[in-house]
Amino acid sequence: MPAHNAILLVSCPDQAGLVAKLTAFIHGNGGNIVHLDQHVDTDADVFFMRVEWSLEQFTIPREALGKAIAKLTRPLNMHAELYFSDAPIRLAIFVTSQNHCLYDLLARYEAGELPGVEIPLIIGNHKALEPAAQRFGIAFHHFDVDKTRKPEVERAEIALLRENQVDTIVMAKYMQILSDEFCAEFPNRIINIHHSFLPAFVGAKPYHQAHERGVKIIGATAHYATADLDQGPIIEQDVIHVSHKESIDDYVRRGKDLEKLVLSRAVWWHIQRKVLVHENRTVIFR
Amino acid sequence: MPAHNAILLVSCPDQAGLVAKLTAFIHGNGGNIVHLDQHVDTDADVFFMRVEWSLEQFTIPREALGKAIAKLTRPLNMHAELYFSDAPIRLAIFVTSQNHCLYDLLARYEAGELPGVEIPLIIGNHKALEPAAQRFGIAFHHFDVDKTRKPEVERAEIALLRENQVDTIVMAKYMQILSDEFCAEFPNRIINIHHSFLPAFVGAKPYHQAHERGVKIIGATAHYATADLDQGPIIEQDVIHVSHKESIDDYVRRGKDLEKLVLSRAVWWHIQRKVLVHENRTVIFR
Amino acid sequence: MPAHNAILLVSCPDQAGLVAKLTAFIHGNGGNIVHLDQHVDTDADVFFMRVEWSLEQFTIPREALGKAIAKLTRPLNMHAELYFSDAPIRLAIFVTSQNHCLYDLLARYEAGELPGVEIPLIIGNHKALEPAAQRFGIAFHHFDVDKTRKPEVERAEIALLRENQVDTIVMAKYMQILSDEFCAEFPNRIINIHHSFLPAFVGAKPYHQAHERGVKIIGATAHYATADLDQGPIIEQDVIHVSHKESIDDYVRRGKDLEKLVLSRAVWWHIQRKVLVHENRTVIFR
Amino acid sequence: MPAHNAILLVSCPDQAGLVAKLTAFIHGNGGNIVHLDQHVDTDADVFFMRVEWSLEQFTIPREALGKAIAKLTRPLNMHAELYFSDAPIRLAIFVTSQNHCLYDLLARYEAGELPGVEIPLIIGNHKALEPAAQRFGIAFHHFDVDKTRKPEVERAEIALLRENQVDTIVMAKYMQILSDEFCAEFPNRIINIHHSFLPAFVGAKPYHQAHERGVKIIGATAHYATADLDQGPIIEQDVIHVSHKESIDDYVRRGKDLEKLVLSRAVWWHIQRKVLVHENRTVIFR
Repeated sequence: MPAHNAILLVSCPDQAGLVAKLTAFIHGNGGNIVHLDQHVDTDADVFFMRVEWSLEQFTIPREALGKAIAKLTRPLNMHAELYFSDAPIRLAIFVTSQNHCLYDLLARYEAGELPGVEIPLIIGNHKALEPAAQRFGIAFHHFDVDKTRKPEVERAEIALLRENQVDTIVMAKYMQILSDEFCAEFPNRIINIHHSFLPAFVGAKPYHQAHERGVKIIGATAHYATADLDQGPIIEQDVIHVSHKESIDDYVRRGKDLEKLVLSRAVWWHIQRKVLVHENRTVIFR
Repeated sequence: MPAHNAILLVSCPDQAGLVAKLTAFIHGNGGNIVHLDQHVDTDADVFFMRVEWSLEQFTIPREALGKAIAKLTRPLNMHAELYFSDAPIRLAIFVTSQNHCLYDLLARYEAGELPGVEIPLIIGNHKALEPAAQRFGIAFHHFDVDKTRKPEVERAEIALLRENQVDTIVMAKYMQILSDEFCAEFPNRIINIHHSFLPAFVGAKPYHQAHERGVKIIGATAHYATADLDQGPIIEQDVIHVSHKESIDDYVRRGKDLEKLVLSRAVWWHIQRKVLVHENRTVIFR
Repeated sequence: MPAHNAILLVSCPDQAGLVAKLTAFIHGNGGNIVHLDQHVDTDADVFFMRVEWSLEQFTIPREALGKAIAKLTRPLNMHAELYFSDAPIRLAIFVTSQNHCLYDLLARYEAGELPGVEIPLIIGNHKALEPAAQRFGIAFHHFDVDKTRKPEVERAEIALLRENQVDTIVMAKYMQILSDEFCAEFPNRIINIHHSFLPAFVGAKPYHQAHERGVKIIGATAHYATADLDQGPIIEQDVIHVSHKESIDDYVRRGKDLEKLVLSRAVWWHIQRKVLVHENRTVIFR
Repeated sequence: MPAHNAILLVSCPDQAGLVAKLTAFIHGNGGNIVHLDQHVDTDADVFFMRVEWSLEQFTIPREALGKAIAKLTRPLNMHAELYFSDAPIRLAIFVTSQNHCLYDLLARYEAGELPGVEIPLIIGNHKALEPAAQRFGIAFHHFDVDKTRKPEVERAEIALLRENQVDTIVMAKYMQILSDEFCAEFPNRIINIHHSFLPAFVGAKPYHQAHERGVKIIGATAHYATADLDQGPIIEQDVIHVSHKESIDDYVRRGKDLEKLVLSRAVWWHIQRKVLVHENRTVIFR
């Protein structure tokens, strides 16, 4: 059973007394702080904080909390995001034909390792993974994305996602580029996995690019999708060492392990409401 | 020039309102919080916090701060440690004959990468590294540690360390076991480096033990020395992968790189006053 | 389509000319060497080699090759293992109730990433993962292992495994200890995953042990199961860094990612016939 | 005392029987193979091999070996490099003002960890590290590199290097770009360290670029310097994880540890004659 907590993420120009003001507000209204993580970017003079508190004895009702927070944060010129730890997070997974990221997510889902997450549907631009979706009892929708019909298809997808109250999209090796309009519909709520340590090897066939350049490490990067291909805020990255003994096929095979882990870690931070985006960079309150 | 900050490390049984109380105290007395890192061990129900604040506008004078903190923390049953970021930290380095950890520390010291640190002396149970000390202009003291004279030698060392107002001892591959009495003199202020991923391969010749067992990783562990050999609170650990192609000599050679880095990281956290020891474990406020 | 190659793994006391003798034998009989990896353990004076050659133009027929190899290697006092790259490797997976290692293996199997492998059956001492097996169309056999019936149950398992011509057993978080008799039936062919960086934290609840000791890394170890619990030859190990912020539950959750990857890498080396066991250590010809 | 071994590195279009031919040559002339590492790049159909054998019973005298090798390898269209393990390797170190890579190399040198290496001189475009050189008793040469005099200065440097029979140059954070002419003088014998995981963040201020992009890992790359800035064959790379809590200064501080280790590993492989360059990529025979 999830805890009944409020989670507040804020960022603003730094000034004295911010922590005291925020914690006094919470404590003064009966909230018990469970986690507090605060950071000042001294280069840019920006204040960041994530605070999570129990609502058990909290005197401000949920439906009034948004307003109370706004009243507190607006005079401080704060960007503020409020979440409740017991609110479900509805995920849609987009796939093409590789199964590793999808199975990895579904195995976690089935094992109860994605607390609060509901996966109402999987969307594929191929039908290859329809059986995988079916095995886990999740609706699979096939959208044939040919170039001429892209805007039309995306509108249909958005309608379906809205209908299913989807909060977050996970591109689990979805080998299509989303339009600016689509990305704008889900700002900082589309998680993509790219199979290189960005910004190296942007775009197509990164493992081939890596092999050609003769690098000694290959990587994977999970980031929020934006209108600029592979340029969105990075959530998580990791690498493995490779040797001259390995072919491009080996990179692909071993890289898949990286991809699924990096993606799942990004999903984890996201659903924990531990990610705050500021100027195309992420703050991850681990 | 170091900032004029106060640093407070606390631990205590968890209860509601601790963050608010502490931050209200600081903010109420004109302190501006620069860093705050807080954590609750929910398994053990223990609260930990490190908070650092600027003394520039702070109204409580330094010499009165200890008392004020005690007045605040005692009723909360808090263990509290107070430091000032501009107070020098006097380090003594203990060595035997391997040079890698010593040179690593001295190169950082010379480059100004150990802020606040002063190294008044190096103690060796061999003379092999006396020239190294001399090159960096640091006094070298040789103590011949034979078993029969150990208590006597340690008393002389302690006298010398006191005379030099030494705060912290770094055992930079000092291949001697310190007595309980010696360790008790510098609680949580003797940093040792052991060349294994503890608790594996305690004691002598860990690389030989590792080779014999056929492990695929070897490691190094920096910990506070206590009366129990290799059992003190762990500060930092790291590992590297090894293969069957590597001999024990290769382990030794490559392990040295691990040892010096793990040790220097432990020293870094220690001098930043980011380490809090609680029940033989460390909390590192990174 | 797999290549039609022969793979020879050998070990013996070192002497001059071993590589030349072996390669001359292969080349002299029309074999083209595809891979050759050779190593001398200079501490122990033991020679190791793995050589793989194409059978396309090879003049010695398969059925006569074993004898020819014996004739070549016996006078050299060589331990020799001969495999054919196109021979199927029949795997049985043993499980209890955690799904992560099982799904990881099955996803690879379905994607064709375990070349040559056939998985005729899954054995569970619980029924929790029977649905998972069914989804992938693999026979699931439940054996209720209570202490009094253990020898009897193991005999039934061995009969079933033989009947299915099982070559290798993968213990995918199978939380039972196999008897000496069972292990002896599949020497160096039972792959187990233990959730610690062995030899640290042998036995039960290694994550709890790790948390208690306050280590900064946790690990996983894949090894061949032998009569001595967690003492068999190590095939693969890896670790992740942990912090004081993480509870035992976090260790368990993050550790699962390690476990499934370390296990699958061990399976990979094993099915590639790249693992040679010598005196409780493995040589991995990567 | 170094072993008296010959080391042969070869690359050529793949064909049947190469290993057998080469090993038969060595064994047939009384050589005992100590190490053999062979690899076929199946994508490009290129054969690579490194073989090291003892000269103790070898019947071809050293001075005739080059010719014998040429006779053997030319008909096979082989690129071949011959070294002797007991021949000294004369290194020159180029520095600017950061001390970490220099001290790291000199500490290894003093400890006897760079077998066969002689360091006759250090060249600096600043005088900051002259005292460091003096402490280790190594000649320091200052060359004031202003743009107008660059060709002239480089000619003087080359003359000095020749005079000292320098084989290999290590750029230990030498913050100058060498001309094409200079690079051409020491093909695959100038080792540079760049403070990013190339090909990301080529050129100036890579840590600033990394911080700006919001990456979660930073890296270092050792490569052979060529006329194209940061485009030469990569020898070694490694990375560390960073968090939003770290400033550019932290990247610089922690990156130095990466830089010195990655550089020293590259130097190690180079002096062991384990690096073969082929089409702007390296094969490292570990």
